[in-house]
Amino acid sequence: MDYFSDHISKLIGELEKLPGIGPKSASRLAFHIIDMPVEDVEALASSLTDARKNIKLCKTCFTITDEDECRICRSSHRDHSTIMVVETTRDLAAYEKTGKYNGVYHVLHGAISPMLGIGPGDIKLKELVARLKGDVKEVIIATNSSLEGETTAMYISKLIKPAGIKVSRIASGVPVGGDLECIDEVTLLRALEGRVEI
Amino acid sequence: MDYFSDHISKLIGELEKLPGIGPKSASRLAFHIIDMPVEDVEALASSLTDARKNIKLCKTCFTITDEDECRICRSSHRDHSTIMVVETTRDLAAYEKTGKYNGVYHVLHGAISPMLGIGPGDIKLKELVARLKGDVKEVIIATNSSLEGETTAMYISKLIKPAGIKVSRIASGVPVGGDLECIDEVTLLRALEGRVEI
Repeated sequence: MDYFSDHISKLIGELEKLPGIGPKSASRLAFHIIDMPVEDVEALASSLTDARKNIKLCKTCFTITDEDECRICRSSHRDHSTIMVVETTRDLAAYEKTGKYNGVYHVLHGAISPMLGIGPGDIKLKELVARLKGDVKEVIIATNSSLEGETTAMYISKLIKPAGIKVSRIASGVPVGGDLECIDEVTLLRALEGRVEI
Repeated sequence: MDYFSDHISKLIGELEKLPGIGPKSASRLAFHIIDMPVEDVEALASSLTDARKNIKLCKTCFTITDEDECRICRSSHRDHSTIMVVETTRDLAAYEKTGKYNGVYHVLHGAISPMLGIGPGDIKLKELVARLKGDVKEVIIATNSSLEGETTAMYISKLIKPAGIKVSRIASGVPVGGDLECIDEVTLLRALEGRVEI
């Protein structure tokens, strides 16, 4: 693309590497960026490198944080006897946004996937088992409702149950507001299997 | 969003300011960025500031370039007697991608818009008039087919014609591959008005 400036072509190339950004979006973003005030561009650039260089994993739940231990694990207002197991920090954030869960979390940083060669040793599972030595009453498994997520849930359940700790799995079914005719058959069957008396 | 690290919240905030990037995309991008190798993040960050700080406008056609005069204006293979007038460097790039236009360009950096208070003096119009003193045979007006683009085209036409230079306007009509039933009425009428004998 030598009809642009080299600097812009390079910027477009870098932006295109990001997920969900194609050539057209990259070009639109690049031209927006060169019209932005210099200080705003510098703020964006430094937020990129700062975030990449300064993140840590919480020593307890392994979520992404700035400190040694995250705010949720340090909070005395949270119920530390209930641990919700999630695949990623984004999943943790999704439950935190509901504002209704008062327990703590454990972030696995992945799910067991024989297809991708990810075994139990590749995710934060032994770290979860180590946490169960404390006063833990319930482990809620909130891995994704995918093949990998379900495999991981089954594996954790088998691993923990012998210790006498209650293990639960978040419900699978029709999303609230979901239109039945637009929902896949597997979800419809799950919703049927998981029906509750009203 | 204090369930993420401050660095990530800040990064998400910065990314959300970009056009076409909402809260979900910003979060997805931020988590992708913290998983990227440090050197890739640094390359992205420096491409942002480099592009912003080092761009210049070509002294002849006002396109965005790294040098004083752009590659197209410096080329002896291009027909310097034909000038295509476009609103932005992106429009120039769109025509360059066709590979079939051999003339040079003039980038207005906008279009006349009484609504937005952009008058003839706010775009590179007097710079276009100054170029016409040379050996120019045709000015092709390729501003957008919007109200502003059409107003600008009319204005330029009236400005230049008295000098005896041929002024043309790119055709307006049904896009190639366009489905007639999906096309707005104004475009359909333009296509009818602009019909050519076959």
